[in-house]
Amino acid sequence: MFKKVCIIGCGLIGSSIARAIKKNNLARKVVSSNRSNVTNKSIIKLNIVDEATSDTKKITKDSDLIIIATPLSSYKEIILKIKNSLKSGAILTDVGSVKKNVISIVEKYIPKNISWISSHPIAGTEESGPESGFSELFKNRWCILTPSKQAKVQDIKLLETFWKKIGSRVDIMNAKEHDYILSITSHIPHLIAYNIVSTTLNIKKNIGKDIVKYSAGGLRDFTRIAASNPIMWRDIFIQNNRNTSKMIDKFIDNLKDLKKAIKKKDGKKLERIFIKTKKIRKEIIQAGQDIGKPDFGRK
Amino acid sequence: MFKKVCIIGCGLIGSSIARAIKKNNLARKVVSSNRSNVTNKSIIKLNIVDEATSDTKKITKDSDLIIIATPLSSYKEIILKIKNSLKSGAILTDVGSVKKNVISIVEKYIPKNISWISSHPIAGTEESGPESGFSELFKNRWCILTPSKQAKVQDIKLLETFWKKIGSRVDIMNAKEHDYILSITSHIPHLIAYNIVSTTLNIKKNIGKDIVKYSAGGLRDFTRIAASNPIMWRDIFIQNNRNTSKMIDKFIDNLKDLKKAIKKKDGKKLERIFIKTKKIRKEIIQAGQDIGKPDFGRK
Repeated sequence: MFKKVCIIGCGLIGSSIARAIKKNNLARKVVSSNRSNVTNKSIIKLNIVDEATSDTKKITKDSDLIIIATPLSSYKEIILKIKNSLKSGAILTDVGSVKKNVISIVEKYIPKNISWISSHPIAGTEESGPESGFSELFKNRWCILTPSKQAKVQDIKLLETFWKKIGSRVDIMNAKEHDYILSITSHIPHLIAYNIVSTTLNIKKNIGKDIVKYSAGGLRDFTRIAASNPIMWRDIFIQNNRNTSKMIDKFIDNLKDLKKAIKKKDGKKLERIFIKTKKIRKEIIQAGQDIGKPDFGRK
Repeated sequence: MFKKVCIIGCGLIGSSIARAIKKNNLARKVVSSNRSNVTNKSIIKLNIVDEATSDTKKITKDSDLIIIATPLSSYKEIILKIKNSLKSGAILTDVGSVKKNVISIVEKYIPKNISWISSHPIAGTEESGPESGFSELFKNRWCILTPSKQAKVQDIKLLETFWKKIGSRVDIMNAKEHDYILSITSHIPHLIAYNIVSTTLNIKKNIGKDIVKYSAGGLRDFTRIAASNPIMWRDIFIQNNRNTSKMIDKFIDNLKDLKKAIKKKDGKKLERIFIKTKKIRKEIIQAGQDIGKPDFGRK
């Protein structure tokens, strides 16, 4: 499919893409650029990529597909490094979780002969680093494409095929819609998980008692999400701060409403809400985004 | 261990206890009382119990161990039914998630020759009903005992051994401490999960777009918890409304603080919080309350 694919940032997502490319024979060569030379050496040794260096400019200049898979706050620096040396006609994409800001940064600097098409594979685990990646990560997950105006139609088609070949289902969305929807389905859930674990940690200090051992009653599941990459999520919340802030307000309003019902012992209201929330679970299982098997003490 | 154990309410927890008793040969006979005769017939057919009826008074009167495994709001009715016919020296326990209220109700009515020792096995899945139970549910999970003043020491020991034989680890705690700690590790996480799914449902109506398919970004995990038994959780929040309300306030304060950091783009603060929350995950895995394997698209 491609002669040379370059992944900038070979972490969980980047290394999973590299593995999936190799597994499905989608490029003659997969290379990567990482700041850390320990990472560069390690991913070559693990045979995740064919070549790796910290010289981003050099390694991207003859690539047909360049995938930025670093935290959002590093995009500008990367773009400034590579913008003048990319091959004419190359496709540039990323895997970032927020679109509006970074798209305008990239559009501002990247020359018109580059097809800039932003991607967001909605996939991941709570782990980080190249060792934690795996080729099946994108299987059956959605990937949202947000093409720039300068992107060629055939390149959008090609990138769509690329994601499909590594297992994804593809949707096209504009940046505004993407950032709004993802604030609901991903950013707020993560923020809430961070907040509940952080609230618990504050209380834990005061109790001085081991409450971790009773975490199987619900808290446990939140700690998994709150163990996600701190730098990545710091950048996501800051870049999507408008949608996130609005959603926090809605969340707090609803929580206050629930609190009122609890205080008034309004069982009927609570029951009505909890029966509704139970239903959406079925929809998610039907949509193939989780399995119906109950989760308790995963194996 | 016992001649006859009676489980009042053979749902997920009750039927799992019945299965574990049979598997470990802890009683000559396991019986159950349920309102619904469909349930009574079904659990006999499935060989979960030896006998089942809706006549709670009759079936409990010669039992050595009686386990209440129904929603908290039904305790009073049950106690009034059985209080005058229980065998002298019998042990009465439950599996409820809130202690203070129900303990005083039971203490008020139950005669002194009955050892009333409240239990709380911190175990469960998002499913309900006798079909969803399994004998290994309590393995490696904590069970908290809250004995009443009238409980005999040897009976507390016996009940402790019982829980250990079906796989639990046992702690003893007073009602006040139990209700406070569980509000943190279980009740608030569930309330937050219900609230986030409910908030999403409200928004979903307005968007009119399928957002469920993007739920793998985080929301998915909350829907699992928010699919738990609505009646059971309605009762828990109402019975533990003081602790829950206080915890909601703390949670909202912290969330507002996070929102402020996001609005001010205070990356350092966010990073500091997210690094801390990542650490507790390790403690939970070390405590054997979850496994270290990352979770994405459970199989």
